[in-house]
Amino acid sequence: MSVRYRARVEYDGTDYAGFQAQSGTRTVQGELEAALSRLVDGARLPVEGAGRTDAGVHATGQVIAFTYPGPLTGAELEAALNALLPRDVAVRELRPVRAGFHPRYAARYREYRYTVWNGPRSPLRERTALGLRVPLDTDAMARAGSAFVGRHDFSAFGSTVGRPVRTVYAVRVRRRGSLVTIDVTADAFLRGMVRRVVAVLLDVGRGKMNEESVAAVLGAGRPALAGQSAPARGLCLRRVVLGRRPDDHRYGDDDEG
Amino acid sequence: MSVRYRARVEYDGTDYAGFQAQSGTRTVQGELEAALSRLVDGARLPVEGAGRTDAGVHATGQVIAFTYPGPLTGAELEAALNALLPRDVAVRELRPVRAGFHPRYAARYREYRYTVWNGPRSPLRERTALGLRVPLDTDAMARAGSAFVGRHDFSAFGSTVGRPVRTVYAVRVRRRGSLVTIDVTADAFLRGMVRRVVAVLLDVGRGKMNEESVAAVLGAGRPALAGQSAPARGLCLRRVVLGRRPDDHRYGDDDEG
Repeated sequence: MSVRYRARVEYDGTDYAGFQAQSGTRTVQGELEAALSRLVDGARLPVEGAGRTDAGVHATGQVIAFTYPGPLTGAELEAALNALLPRDVAVRELRPVRAGFHPRYAARYREYRYTVWNGPRSPLRERTALGLRVPLDTDAMARAGSAFVGRHDFSAFGSTVGRPVRTVYAVRVRRRGSLVTIDVTADAFLRGMVRRVVAVLLDVGRGKMNEESVAAVLGAGRPALAGQSAPARGLCLRRVVLGRRPDDHRYGDDDEG
Repeated sequence: MSVRYRARVEYDGTDYAGFQAQSGTRTVQGELEAALSRLVDGARLPVEGAGRTDAGVHATGQVIAFTYPGPLTGAELEAALNALLPRDVAVRELRPVRAGFHPRYAARYREYRYTVWNGPRSPLRERTALGLRVPLDTDAMARAGSAFVGRHDFSAFGSTVGRPVRTVYAVRVRRRGSLVTIDVTADAFLRGMVRRVVAVLLDVGRGKMNEESVAAVLGAGRPALAGQSAPARGLCLRRVVLGRRPDDHRYGDDDEG
């Protein structure tokens, strides 16, 4: 009998062309499906993810689901997958779920963290943070970040084939010494949205943009910042919170952080 | 006029065959000397380091020194070096020092940190921590660690061409969630010493060795643990504290953490 499973997935996205499988490139979905396939005599078991992270973006809390028809128990399956997966991706907290479970639709909200090392170049943080030497005004960034909170048309901050309206629940900017983190939580994200929001906040932090113009760009409700996007290496999908939304809205296929 | 400089160096040691230059391999010293050489028309300026870290060992607080005969100011030299160095090594806090300054002899003590991720496999910590799933008894490790503190013959824990006596000032074992750190501070280390001390403490943490046998091995004062060494990726040279020791003892050329 087949069992539907979900799991949390962590990956170092540096050497991946993103989460979603594309022929001819190394993707997280591709590695997960390849490992699963080896456990079922080469059959293809599709793996679905809650967020289609872009090339170079990391995750500690990606959520996946797949249907497994083989003889292993959940604990055995988790151990076997981790033994077969490459070192830069791992599966945790594998749990059975209802047959119709789809992580994208089950996700109530997603939390991304963008990490900036705001100091001299730091080789040990090179893979997971954006290095910026010019001191950031994190108080101004935190104030500007609050403009994004609420239900908005995010056309200026990302692309989508469906409706461009998303609800941002929180934007938190924190500093601990040279380490600056920007946490953005929303019901879902347009493709490229987090990195464009971060690019704007970094401009505010460097004094290149003021808080009022952030609100104006957001209010314009049309593509205006297409070129500006913070580098992928600072971005990490930290959490996908599952559970039904009251209006169970189904987002387009292009959702991404 | 030539100026003697010292600097702090940070590197991700993953892709290095260690600090010390060896022909045919990529080393931190080699990269530093190559960058410097490009600033003085190809002349070779020898770079000296306080600790000869092994292949795969990282540093946030390595100290180097070199003599620079060119026209750049200290601030310009630091910026130029960082522009020429690869992304996995960086120079900070470049300062002029007295002409005879040698970081190895000027080092009063060195602090290494060994990092263990004591939980399910974590791809984002893969380069900088040893992953161990079996729960470590960090209290027992801390107690066993205190056996190393003091002036001892460390023959059982490393190799040296000179005297095998070193003074360990502190061994601190700490846990924060799944993250376990072991900090070892000593006047100097024999080659391979930190990783052998850590291997013993990990055996204590897993219940494979008791605290009394640690003291016995140390007391034996002869090579007894040659095979056991914790993997390089968890080790980082965090700090080199400069200043004269009362007895200004000169250690052999094989000092390493």
